[in-house]
Amino acid sequence: MRKFVVSLLFFVTYSVFAQTLLPSWNDGPSKQAVLSFIEKTTAKDSPDFVPVSQRIAVFDNDGTLWSEQPIYVQISFTFDRIKALAHKHPEWTTQQPFKAVLENDIKGVMATGQDGLFKLIAATHAGVTTEEFREIAEQWIKTARHPKTGRLYTEMVYQPMLELLAHLESRGYKNYIVSGGGIEFMRPWTELVYGIPPERVIGSSIKSQFQIIDGSPRIVGLPEMQFIDDKENKPIAIQERIGRRPIMAFGNSDGDYEMLLWTTAGKGPRFGMLIHHTDDVREVAYDRQSSIGRLNTALDEAPIRGWTVVDMKREWREIFPAK
Amino acid sequence: MRKFVVSLLFFVTYSVFAQTLLPSWNDGPSKQAVLSFIEKTTAKDSPDFVPVSQRIAVFDNDGTLWSEQPIYVQISFTFDRIKALAHKHPEWTTQQPFKAVLENDIKGVMATGQDGLFKLIAATHAGVTTEEFREIAEQWIKTARHPKTGRLYTEMVYQPMLELLAHLESRGYKNYIVSGGGIEFMRPWTELVYGIPPERVIGSSIKSQFQIIDGSPRIVGLPEMQFIDDKENKPIAIQERIGRRPIMAFGNSDGDYEMLLWTTAGKGPRFGMLIHHTDDVREVAYDRQSSIGRLNTALDEAPIRGWTVVDMKREWREIFPAK
Repeated sequence: MRKFVVSLLFFVTYSVFAQTLLPSWNDGPSKQAVLSFIEKTTAKDSPDFVPVSQRIAVFDNDGTLWSEQPIYVQISFTFDRIKALAHKHPEWTTQQPFKAVLENDIKGVMATGQDGLFKLIAATHAGVTTEEFREIAEQWIKTARHPKTGRLYTEMVYQPMLELLAHLESRGYKNYIVSGGGIEFMRPWTELVYGIPPERVIGSSIKSQFQIIDGSPRIVGLPEMQFIDDKENKPIAIQERIGRRPIMAFGNSDGDYEMLLWTTAGKGPRFGMLIHHTDDVREVAYDRQSSIGRLNTALDEAPIRGWTVVDMKREWREIFPAK
Repeated sequence: MRKFVVSLLFFVTYSVFAQTLLPSWNDGPSKQAVLSFIEKTTAKDSPDFVPVSQRIAVFDNDGTLWSEQPIYVQISFTFDRIKALAHKHPEWTTQQPFKAVLENDIKGVMATGQDGLFKLIAATHAGVTTEEFREIAEQWIKTARHPKTGRLYTEMVYQPMLELLAHLESRGYKNYIVSGGGIEFMRPWTELVYGIPPERVIGSSIKSQFQIIDGSPRIVGLPEMQFIDDKENKPIAIQERIGRRPIMAFGNSDGDYEMLLWTTAGKGPRFGMLIHHTDDVREVAYDRQSSIGRLNTALDEAPIRGWTVVDMKREWREIFPAK
C-alpha cells in the first residue's frame, strides 16, 4: 500500500513536470513509462532508488538513435571509401563485391553475402592506424549526406532520443552505445552528437596489431573480424566491457532482443524499450519483414517481458532535429 | 621563458603542498615528478592543462598496486579452488597439473607450463555463470591470506599507490586497471580496495556463452582463453576499451613495457612510471632475473623514454597499509 501511495505521488508530481521534459515526445504511454522509471530510480526517497554507480543505460545505435534506412550509414561510408580507393585497385572493376559497389549495384553487393561484406570492410577499415582511421571517419561524417533527405547523417539522429539521452545524463545515468556498428567508426562523433564518450561506445571490431616502427608505437587494423556485436554477443560485450548489468536498455530490432532480455531479467527495477518504426511519411515504416532492422521476435515478446514499445508515428512529435 | 617561470612557480608552490600529499612517499624524485605532472595537467592556468575527459591513467595490478610475490594472487585462488573442487574429481589425484596442485608441488605445476595453467583456469574459472563466479571470487578474497605475512591479500596492496589513486581521482583523473589478471577475478573487489569500478577494469578473460534457460538469460564461462591482457595486448585492449590514449601509465614489469610506450608516445604531456621492487626487507627485491614480474627491457629504456622509476626501498615510507 505504501508503495502504491508513493507511486501515485510520483505520477501526480511527474505529470506536471513531464510536460516540459522530452518536448519532442507526445504525452503518451511511452513518455510516461520512461519518465516515471527515471524518476522512481533517482528520487532519493523512492523505494526503487538506484545508486548512481548502477545507473547504466545501454542503447543500440542504428534504428534506435539514428536512421538505418534505406541502408546502414556505415555501409554508405564503406561504399564511398571503396570508390575513393578504387584508383589504387584497378582489379576492383572486375572483382566482386568491389565491381558491384563501383557500379552502385546494391543488389549485386547484397548477393555476395556476409563474405562480400567482410571483404569490403577489410579493404576499407584495415591497413591504417587507429589515428588514421579516426581521421578518415571524421572527415567523411562531416560531409556525407543521406541519400533521400540530403541532410548530414549526424542530423538523421532522433530528436526524442537526444532529449532522452540528455535527461538520463542529468539524472546520473551513464549512457552506453552497444551497437552492431564498428566501434572505431562511431567513436569520432558519438561524443559530439550524443554526449557519449569513446569509452562508453561498444561495437563490432576488426583485429588489430601493435607495432613499433623506428621506436614509435602504433596500432594498425587487420583485415579480419574480431567481434560482431549483435544478438547474443551484445550481453556478452556488456559483461566484458561494463562488468555489471544495465538498468535500462533501448533497441529497435531482433538484434537487440538478447540485450533487452539480459538487462530486464536482472533483479530490482528494470526498463526495456523498443523503438517501433511506424511512420511511413516522416521516416520509413518497417518491422517484421524488413531485411534491415527486422523486429519480429522482440515485438512478440515485448508485452510478456514488460517492454515499452514506442509507436514513432503516434508518440514522437518530431523525429529529426529542426533544420 | 614564460613556460620556465610557470614551471618554477608550480615547483615552489608544490613543494609546500607536497609535504601533506602522498604521506607514504618520501620526498624524493618520484614523488616530485608525479605530483608536479598532476599539478601541471590540472591547474587551469597551466600551459600543459589537460581537459577532464582526457585525464586517463592506466595501472597494471600485480606488482604495481599489490604484491605479486611469492606467487600471483590469482594462482593462489586457482590452487585453493582446485582443492575445493577435488572431491568431485577423483581423477585429479593422478592427472597433471591437478596432482601437483593437490600435493602443493609448485615446481611440478610450473613444469606443466602455460598449457597446464590453462587447464587449471578452465577447471576453476569456467562452467559457472558470471554471477556465480563473482560470488566465488568475492568469498575467497574475504578470507584468503598471504602465505608469508598472513595478511588478507587486500591488505597486501601498496599504501603509496592507494594514496596516488585517490589523489588522481580528486584531480579529475579516471583510473583504469589494465592487468594480465582475470577481469572477473578483479572486479569483485577493485572498487572497494582501489576505488576503481568494474567498467574501468581491463584484464584477461575466458570465452563466454549467452544462454536462455527456461526463458531466463545467463552468461556462462567457457573453458577457453579469449584474451591475455599482457605485453602488446595491453595497448590493444586500451584502444578497444577506452578508445583514447591514456595520459599516465604505471607498471612494474616488461609486461607493461608496451603500455608505457603507447601512453608516453602520444602528443602533449605524458607520464610513465615503473615501480622497482628494491626492498628485500619489507617486501621482495626482484627485477631482471625474476620469473614473476621480470623488469629488464623496460628498466633499460626508462631513462631514454623519460619514465620515472620508483625505488621502493628509498622512496616509499610505508609499503603496506598500517595494520
